[in-house]
Amino acid sequence: MIMEKKRVRLTVAYDGTNYHGWQIQNNGITIESELNRCLSDLLGEPVEVIGASRTDSGVHALENIAVFDTESPMPAEKISYALNQRLPEDIRIQRSEEVAADWHPRHCKSRKTYEYRIYRGEFPMPVRRLYAYFTYRSLCVEDMREAAAYLVGEHDFKSFCQTGAQVESTVRTIYLIEVEEQGVELVIRVCGNGFLYNMVRIIAGTLMEVGQGRRAPSDMPAILDAKDRRAAGPTAPAHGLTLMRYEFL
Amino acid sequence: MIMEKKRVRLTVAYDGTNYHGWQIQNNGITIESELNRCLSDLLGEPVEVIGASRTDSGVHALENIAVFDTESPMPAEKISYALNQRLPEDIRIQRSEEVAADWHPRHCKSRKTYEYRIYRGEFPMPVRRLYAYFTYRSLCVEDMREAAAYLVGEHDFKSFCQTGAQVESTVRTIYLIEVEEQGVELVIRVCGNGFLYNMVRIIAGTLMEVGQGRRAPSDMPAILDAKDRRAAGPTAPAHGLTLMRYEFL
Repeated sequence: MIMEKKRVRLTVAYDGTNYHGWQIQNNGITIESELNRCLSDLLGEPVEVIGASRTDSGVHALENIAVFDTESPMPAEKISYALNQRLPEDIRIQRSEEVAADWHPRHCKSRKTYEYRIYRGEFPMPVRRLYAYFTYRSLCVEDMREAAAYLVGEHDFKSFCQTGAQVESTVRTIYLIEVEEQGVELVIRVCGNGFLYNMVRIIAGTLMEVGQGRRAPSDMPAILDAKDRRAAGPTAPAHGLTLMRYEFL
Repeated sequence: MIMEKKRVRLTVAYDGTNYHGWQIQNNGITIESELNRCLSDLLGEPVEVIGASRTDSGVHALENIAVFDTESPMPAEKISYALNQRLPEDIRIQRSEEVAADWHPRHCKSRKTYEYRIYRGEFPMPVRRLYAYFTYRSLCVEDMREAAAYLVGEHDFKSFCQTGAQVESTVRTIYLIEVEEQGVELVIRVCGNGFLYNMVRIIAGTLMEVGQGRRAPSDMPAILDAKDRRAAGPTAPAHGLTLMRYEFL
């Protein structure tokens, strides 16, 4: 009996609070390890997913992408329902569908949108503590917007890449950055063709320094030109970050 | 040495997920028990708070109210800062202030606003699982609005009160009910002078049945007139409910 193999794409949402990030690690449960465990269990064969964005510990996602190959006769569209029965409730498949056998989530053009959320108040708000970074400092939103505008376009974002990351090129394109006020929360929304390690969190940390008046918006070109991580601001904490959307072009 | 006694009012925010509600119980940690423990520890004297709304297990609050008496010389306004250092991070005092010695949060006129949140989608969204009730059923928002309008004003809400609750009167005034769409979430916002046990959750459960077409908006007057819990819909799950605002008139 010849089993037909197919490649299945999953759209995966998760609350990153209780995970050691996406990628499999020796010392903790990850989104990838939970997907592999539950898929292997469901389909009765060893399954290993390939993820699109290997988000850090504490980072959330409404739409991350994973693919895997299977010989199971289960229709690709049904896998979402069956898999959600086995996954812990802080991981939920939003969609499952068959894709071409050679489709790879990191080898095709895509556009990703991240949001970094900041809760501004005198005291933290418990129901937002896991999803927005708390600050009691006042932030000048106009200055943050002016600074953000310098990052739009194709640039070498080496200054906004965690040192130690191994990548061929540190050039990326940012299509859009918005700094949006939603009541007491401030949302930094960044859409680009790809992001370096910790790039959105370093952008958020740098824009917050601008908002506090510790840097001028007009400092941004020099930060980019430095191509040195030390030129940019701190890496903002992980829990404020959410991967919102993944679009394949 | 004569110690001067003062009454202090706390505005308390919490994530209800990990608590057995507000009120002290033998079998679990509650918001009230945590406040008493941390206040007694901070002020060096036994403290017992009086709460305004004794929310159920799983219900959240941005603004609940508690008062207590103390002989501590610590200025009332400073207590918020010091107490937040001791409280677990899912409880945060938003304000502390001195009030008249006879001020009691349940013996004065007030206006409370609750929100019941519904997440509508094919699958649950992990980051919203603790703060919004998930449903895959489609809901007719217009019908829910039409039904809600019947509840505005002074009514006997006995049909919307959990049986077994001991209250002198089941007459309450609802100033406003809104059914607001916020993207995929639906917010039922209810503002009133007081609420019976489970009243907002029974209103939410009944409005969801209307939204599903299982009841007509025009059934609402008969539900009120019945003065019988069995006439209304089910009690919607606790985690969708948040006490948003407390105003003293």
